[in-house]
Amino acid sequence: MTDKERDGGHTIRFKKPIYISGKASIVGRNEGEGPLGGFFDQVIGDATWGESSFEKCEKKLFREAAAMAVSSAGVEPDILLGGDLLNQIVSAGYSARDLGLPFLGLYGACSTMSESMIVGSMAISGGFAKSVVCAASSHYATSERQFRFPLELGTPKSPHAQNTVIGAGSVVLSAEPRMENEPVITAATIGRVSDPGVSEADNMGAAMAPAAVDTVISHLENMGESPEDYDAIITGDLGTLGSELFVDMCKKLGVDVSRVHMDCGSMIFKGMKDEYCGGSGCGCSAVTLAGYFLKEMLMGKYKKVLFTATGALLSPTVVQQGESIPGIAHAVVIERGK
Amino acid sequence: MTDKERDGGHTIRFKKPIYISGKASIVGRNEGEGPLGGFFDQVIGDATWGESSFEKCEKKLFREAAAMAVSSAGVEPDILLGGDLLNQIVSAGYSARDLGLPFLGLYGACSTMSESMIVGSMAISGGFAKSVVCAASSHYATSERQFRFPLELGTPKSPHAQNTVIGAGSVVLSAEPRMENEPVITAATIGRVSDPGVSEADNMGAAMAPAAVDTVISHLENMGESPEDYDAIITGDLGTLGSELFVDMCKKLGVDVSRVHMDCGSMIFKGMKDEYCGGSGCGCSAVTLAGYFLKEMLMGKYKKVLFTATGALLSPTVVQQGESIPGIAHAVVIERGK
Repeated sequence: MTDKERDGGHTIRFKKPIYISGKASIVGRNEGEGPLGGFFDQVIGDATWGESSFEKCEKKLFREAAAMAVSSAGVEPDILLGGDLLNQIVSAGYSARDLGLPFLGLYGACSTMSESMIVGSMAISGGFAKSVVCAASSHYATSERQFRFPLELGTPKSPHAQNTVIGAGSVVLSAEPRMENEPVITAATIGRVSDPGVSEADNMGAAMAPAAVDTVISHLENMGESPEDYDAIITGDLGTLGSELFVDMCKKLGVDVSRVHMDCGSMIFKGMKDEYCGGSGCGCSAVTLAGYFLKEMLMGKYKKVLFTATGALLSPTVVQQGESIPGIAHAVVIERGK
Repeated sequence: MTDKERDGGHTIRFKKPIYISGKASIVGRNEGEGPLGGFFDQVIGDATWGESSFEKCEKKLFREAAAMAVSSAGVEPDILLGGDLLNQIVSAGYSARDLGLPFLGLYGACSTMSESMIVGSMAISGGFAKSVVCAASSHYATSERQFRFPLELGTPKSPHAQNTVIGAGSVVLSAEPRMENEPVITAATIGRVSDPGVSEADNMGAAMAPAAVDTVISHLENMGESPEDYDAIITGDLGTLGSELFVDMCKKLGVDVSRVHMDCGSMIFKGMKDEYCGGSGCGCSAVTLAGYFLKEMLMGKYKKVLFTATGALLSPTVVQQGESIPGIAHAVVIERGK
């Protein structure tokens, strides 16, 4: 089986629509001062939010975003689905403990938000749950010390590095609508793991771009669609360099996504001091979806988007053993409801 | 929401049965010399299996078990679901890359095997996939160095410690049966995170027992069943000490599971030298299910079992910051098919 060529990602068309009936986004101060700042539900004062460690702050971000999304939807969810970048997905796991909800822990690196929405959509559309809450989080300080260098060392960043977003985003998926025009999930593509051979922990955009290309193009092919069928093809956190690679690679395969492509990582810190190649982390696409895109869909700015969170499966341990860093991307079709 | 008392795990009754049409188990030498040795499909010669690191060996275990299960089922799975104990679930992620399959990465610590079977069952029963492959793996040497002490240090073990199983187990779930009497999944309960306050990385059985109690008892209540409805209520890797706690705690809640309870961790090294409190790890329940229980079900020894893999959400980082170690358990009802 290992030698077999696959046809691409696995595409699902949901027979019953899944309503996104609640959402929440909580971000750090920098993110709040960026161009999307006005869209986020809450901006925290500093990188600890009153907790005694960055990890505890990240857990609080996850838990409070999930609780806020649940509260906004006014439902009692059957399941919490989600994850984060920390080892043993502790932000998600300990939040599940504190919230007392049945829990499915997921790990898709920074693709976790769309992964959780796909599994949650299967649960709702299949009739296995009435409502679920999906969430993902990340934190600059916890990620840097786990994957690269603790901030206290003052290690200089490469010019193509990205800044992990401090934030958590959450959505509640339900079988029944709560209001008019509520965005609905209608289809999804589960992505494969692609490996372009990158082994540098500062170059995540390049590690993820081929996975985004594979998932988006196989999604369009499987659905019989073209980029023009979408108002936006949104990638998670390719950053400015990874986004260029993504658009170029799609073009080489005969698909021009340049007019509709948007990248959460490129948007969130755009034009700011120390922008580098933009934002990254599970929280990046989660807060940009919950804070910006879902709100603008409700206002009618976007009618149909392909939300494609992108993850780099970076393990410091196996990279030290000579492995490269593969990427993965999962896509979710979100349409403005009637 | 955080103060609200929940009613327990979330129970699903699948309207369409899910067939377990393929399975595979590969284990280390010790596991192969134990009382279940004759049931496993393959026993590897040493703890590296010809690879240059223990992590690479674990990845090979995962990949080969998944490939063997797929081959035994004779299908082309739409999705690979699974995970392992290593940071960033590298055994699963890199196997997904090598196998070229669309991939949903899961993290439920040692509960991952039943978690993957629940998500896989939703995909099959809901009509979102025709067949999926679920897998989980663990390795003594990779786990010890990540969670406790590298083996090279020769750190003595506590008497209540368990030995992480070297092995990977995999099952293929399909919408259609392949042969007569093929075991089917008919129901499942997604568990909550329970925290008894254990903070010692050597006492996993005690950390997990309350979660197993919560999931099994809420499953029985939600289904209107009693322990006698099952030939075996199988826990993942509570070990001998955790199993005693589990049976006692159930008894205190008025449910006598003593006649039907079996624990994969207590079984796999039973009577062996250096048994300690038995086996543990994602691979422990995965290989015992795929190697022993599913084969004995096909032979008619067990007609209906509740497979409840149990996980301790142990994070060295947050335990150093004063957190305790919560547990989680997910239950799957497996019945002998017609």
